[in-house]
Amino acid sequence: MSQIKVGIINVTGYAGVELARLLYKHPTVKLCSITGRSAAGQKLAEVFPHLADIELTITAELDEVDFVFSAMPHKASAEVILPLVERGIKVVDISADFRLKDASKYLQWYDFAHPAPGLLQKAVYGLPEFHRAEIAKASLVANPGCYPTGALLALAPAIKEGLIYPDIIIDSKSGISGAGRTLSLSTHYAEATDNVHAYSVHGHRHLPEIVQELETLNPGLSPSVTFLPHLVPTSRGILSSCYAKPNEEKPVKGKEELLEIYRSYYKGEPFVRVVDKPPGTKQTWGNNLCLVYPTIDVRTGRIIVISCLDNLVKGAAGQAIQNMNIMFGFSETAGLEALPVYP
Amino acid sequence: MSQIKVGIINVTGYAGVELARLLYKHPTVKLCSITGRSAAGQKLAEVFPHLADIELTITAELDEVDFVFSAMPHKASAEVILPLVERGIKVVDISADFRLKDASKYLQWYDFAHPAPGLLQKAVYGLPEFHRAEIAKASLVANPGCYPTGALLALAPAIKEGLIYPDIIIDSKSGISGAGRTLSLSTHYAEATDNVHAYSVHGHRHLPEIVQELETLNPGLSPSVTFLPHLVPTSRGILSSCYAKPNEEKPVKGKEELLEIYRSYYKGEPFVRVVDKPPGTKQTWGNNLCLVYPTIDVRTGRIIVISCLDNLVKGAAGQAIQNMNIMFGFSETAGLEALPVYP
Amino acid sequence: MSQIKVGIINVTGYAGVELARLLYKHPTVKLCSITGRSAAGQKLAEVFPHLADIELTITAELDEVDFVFSAMPHKASAEVILPLVERGIKVVDISADFRLKDASKYLQWYDFAHPAPGLLQKAVYGLPEFHRAEIAKASLVANPGCYPTGALLALAPAIKEGLIYPDIIIDSKSGISGAGRTLSLSTHYAEATDNVHAYSVHGHRHLPEIVQELETLNPGLSPSVTFLPHLVPTSRGILSSCYAKPNEEKPVKGKEELLEIYRSYYKGEPFVRVVDKPPGTKQTWGNNLCLVYPTIDVRTGRIIVISCLDNLVKGAAGQAIQNMNIMFGFSETAGLEALPVYP
Amino acid sequence: MSQIKVGIINVTGYAGVELARLLYKHPTVKLCSITGRSAAGQKLAEVFPHLADIELTITAELDEVDFVFSAMPHKASAEVILPLVERGIKVVDISADFRLKDASKYLQWYDFAHPAPGLLQKAVYGLPEFHRAEIAKASLVANPGCYPTGALLALAPAIKEGLIYPDIIIDSKSGISGAGRTLSLSTHYAEATDNVHAYSVHGHRHLPEIVQELETLNPGLSPSVTFLPHLVPTSRGILSSCYAKPNEEKPVKGKEELLEIYRSYYKGEPFVRVVDKPPGTKQTWGNNLCLVYPTIDVRTGRIIVISCLDNLVKGAAGQAIQNMNIMFGFSETAGLEALPVYP
Repeated sequence: MSQIKVGIINVTGYAGVELARLLYKHPTVKLCSITGRSAAGQKLAEVFPHLADIELTITAELDEVDFVFSAMPHKASAEVILPLVERGIKVVDISADFRLKDASKYLQWYDFAHPAPGLLQKAVYGLPEFHRAEIAKASLVANPGCYPTGALLALAPAIKEGLIYPDIIIDSKSGISGAGRTLSLSTHYAEATDNVHAYSVHGHRHLPEIVQELETLNPGLSPSVTFLPHLVPTSRGILSSCYAKPNEEKPVKGKEELLEIYRSYYKGEPFVRVVDKPPGTKQTWGNNLCLVYPTIDVRTGRIIVISCLDNLVKGAAGQAIQNMNIMFGFSETAGLEALPVYP
Repeated sequence: MSQIKVGIINVTGYAGVELARLLYKHPTVKLCSITGRSAAGQKLAEVFPHLADIELTITAELDEVDFVFSAMPHKASAEVILPLVERGIKVVDISADFRLKDASKYLQWYDFAHPAPGLLQKAVYGLPEFHRAEIAKASLVANPGCYPTGALLALAPAIKEGLIYPDIIIDSKSGISGAGRTLSLSTHYAEATDNVHAYSVHGHRHLPEIVQELETLNPGLSPSVTFLPHLVPTSRGILSSCYAKPNEEKPVKGKEELLEIYRSYYKGEPFVRVVDKPPGTKQTWGNNLCLVYPTIDVRTGRIIVISCLDNLVKGAAGQAIQNMNIMFGFSETAGLEALPVYP
Repeated sequence: MSQIKVGIINVTGYAGVELARLLYKHPTVKLCSITGRSAAGQKLAEVFPHLADIELTITAELDEVDFVFSAMPHKASAEVILPLVERGIKVVDISADFRLKDASKYLQWYDFAHPAPGLLQKAVYGLPEFHRAEIAKASLVANPGCYPTGALLALAPAIKEGLIYPDIIIDSKSGISGAGRTLSLSTHYAEATDNVHAYSVHGHRHLPEIVQELETLNPGLSPSVTFLPHLVPTSRGILSSCYAKPNEEKPVKGKEELLEIYRSYYKGEPFVRVVDKPPGTKQTWGNNLCLVYPTIDVRTGRIIVISCLDNLVKGAAGQAIQNMNIMFGFSETAGLEALPVYP
Repeated sequence: MSQIKVGIINVTGYAGVELARLLYKHPTVKLCSITGRSAAGQKLAEVFPHLADIELTITAELDEVDFVFSAMPHKASAEVILPLVERGIKVVDISADFRLKDASKYLQWYDFAHPAPGLLQKAVYGLPEFHRAEIAKASLVANPGCYPTGALLALAPAIKEGLIYPDIIIDSKSGISGAGRTLSLSTHYAEATDNVHAYSVHGHRHLPEIVQELETLNPGLSPSVTFLPHLVPTSRGILSSCYAKPNEEKPVKGKEELLEIYRSYYKGEPFVRVVDKPPGTKQTWGNNLCLVYPTIDVRTGRIIVISCLDNLVKGAAGQAIQNMNIMFGFSETAGLEALPVYP
């Protein structure tokens, strides 16, 4: 069987190199073209020695390929994707540029006027557990943000089944790679190690995405979401602890019943695992799983759902490959079967 | 001026060695006696090379001293403290044994029948910002837990002033030293590094302490508290993010007003600093400060208060010394003036 | 093609779980039996959630299998292996029990009398780059220690070609997983983080192994080796910096020539990569590569060779699988092709 | 007693903020002026919240002070210091600009022509254990580099007493703060964590300093030094393992005798502690001590000396204050008595 030729635009960020790493073992696609602005002309192995087995040179422009992952920053990503879409090339966009349906949100949250508002309705929000069927037919898939992936998978069963009032707190703890490879004082080792702090307290860009998808899941619901991200000293991993009050009209008898509802909801999902003990981010290191632990605070009755994932895999590159697999009708787990690296 | 002679029971845990470190620079007390079961007979310098300047030998029994810090585990601590109290020796107990006023809570939360329920009313909960006057007159002070210290200082102004409904979520992130020096798989380096996870989801022992003190602060209030602690890979530090809905009868106009209320509430407090940006645990490394950042989530109106501290200093040994200073009428900051170590 | 059935004795240590992780993706073998003393009766997923896709229960005794990895501690490993060898089952022993040819060394270095000295000559030291042909015919392969693997691969070309005087310093820096999963104060997170120290200064057990193999490589040489291991705060990885004076009778013109000698020596080796910049342990995370960087200190003429590897992969489980592949005539890289996880 | 007014030029690097932290508790000096190019006009507390107790504003130019610490980068430091020296203000320079006696070395190692070669002879190399008497009389002291401090203190007794052949290997492991606060990919958290690597393999700028001082210590000796620095994932700390062959004409009977020679050599030194077990960097966290552990490799006879220190304290700011104390005739330990922060 001939392999499909894929390209990565902007391979030099963390999502880009993680795509390259994972695609190397994919059985039915072949990574053929990789671009990167500052590193153009250099061999991939020079810039990223851990990828030395991939014999490719970073170029300024993409070669002819059958499929493209864009790992460009927002705004720039839309610019490179539009001509590809016009030429009929399927794309998974890892940036935020096609995640939001309401074009005005781009001005509000990302400080730019969206260049192709019409395309926003055609693009599919690439959370397979929510939109698998549409992804299969899509030519442009917007890969979800790392925080939304974990938060949405934690909340979906409770929201969909109406188990909670839509007044939700999401307290997330992310590793430093989530901030990208670009240099900043907050990612300096000496500043980030031995440190924990909240950031974007007055509004993180992943919030509108979370709200949009919760509304999609249960139309009519008007979720009021407080989302507070924190940086913790680890390179990978996001753990989100979500809190909401139980809907008195849909009482759940106890945490065992809640667990069963979650298990039933995610039955057959290859990359969501409902667990019965609080999970740790280390259990997903390098792997495409999202672990979800739903429980009830016995004293207050509050529903707590904790999820964790590897922000560069299920939160970025792995989910992008999962989307590609669905778009091409490959086995959904192709290239994504390796177990987490522990310890 | 002659120095007061102090002793530490069970110097070999992290609270004990931190007491020794801080007392070394205290101007008006002298550490004279240190005990430790397994290490009895050894010089302090052999077991803890960083304390080599303190020329003391660890003994099985305490020598004659004017004041005692007990850093024993709960239950054992009460046993060693009772005879001291009878002899009229002032004590700060770092364990939980005299924190709770209701003796039945010890059976419920700590699995033992309290040996001296009558003493619980005489002991003072040693959070100076709550009980300074009583501490000054006390002979037995129960040093607060590390989590309660941060959570209570974050919530006190809002609870006292009635700004929030008493339906509260406390999401805390603690460094590994909070689990103590005793060996366990969860504190093994290879297990704890690159990992974040929640624990004690169904009830952490620090919860009743938090509830008791919130009730004391605003009698009549019946707080419903969800407290979820997490372990993060750092040796020191606790960051707590607290969430509650605003009390509609006591509206706060905005985050600036909230900040002013907090600043006013903590005016003159030497070890609480109200800050206007999200603080990081690194800003308190080795220091007795608790940083408190109150704000309002503009989209939901929810009040968020983030606090952080060094769990071994303001969360244990530093606060114990602060209490001792108050009990003896020393300057409250004596021995505690060193700035945090950064980076 | 039917898969070969393999078992792991003592799956519960870090080498054991790493074997399980890697074997999960091996194309021609199937992990069928796993033992563990304290965890017998538990499902693997309960003890190691990251391995939940492997549906096996840990047992006290091994089932019938075609091939065995022993990940027992030394001494105990020989005891469980002897009956297997008698029954003709091929074994890779990850412990040190069959690495040394001279039985008296076991008394000297490991404090026990070897139970089967005769078997020491039949066992093959499982460093494929040294003994590939013998491994292919062996039924008992002694998997090298993590430090010796890196040190020997760093030194082999220089020793074999006689480029250096055999007066060698090996300064190694190891991550904490090298100390195993057993609890000890030195692996407590709060003790190990933010810390670097040497240990086993007066003789580490891996030294006789290093000396034995250097002698094998160049008989007649009488190497004088100083080996100093250090613990550094990372979970995986060993970096060894080796120093020796150049042999004046075999002068190397410069670092480029040295690099060429090394490249030529390791030509075709699937898991040794000679690099032209100082490598970092992160470049081998989760992967079976050993990176080797040979150079010359221009001021002193001293030859410096730096190597790094993942102590749990090329330093343990990965190399064990590489040995198994050779013993069965599989592709040597089978199950070991995944790229390192970075960052 | 009136306090001496001191200033810090370029307070915004790690050496600068560490100076500010330590000076805050100094009994006889007062920090009065702090400069910083990019942060001029900002309050110190805004840029460094942990220093909020120091109520100073960062300025572009230094105010009138009695004493100056320059924490400028090399080359720029000489430029700001020259006018101060002309005006008779005493200075400790933390940069390398006055460490080397031979002006030509600046062109060779630092790529600039030294602007005041004549001053190089008047400046004193500020390692108190080597040059205490000259420091006391100096008006310009060149604070040693972090690596040289540890290496020289490790080697001094052996070199001075002629115990080793001057063919020396120094293998150093440094925390990331040694690379400064300036942003670079190698100090990005996600790159530096879980990683160990060597750097500056072909010549680190601290080498000429080490060689110069070894020659000063034992004129006539022509030391051949290989110095290889490594980065390890910790914010503070340098551990140096030094190796040399014993001088057959000055045989040492064993490690106990070596220990005694070292103890005798450093007798009375307030900030060098000779220890009888391998020390760890954590034992010096935030403190001005250098721990030195000399021993003999029994198999090869090689002398090994391991030293460790906090690169920002004894390796920079602490030693600078120690030098200032000597220059003013203060107690040498003034402001430097706090014990290390552990764990």
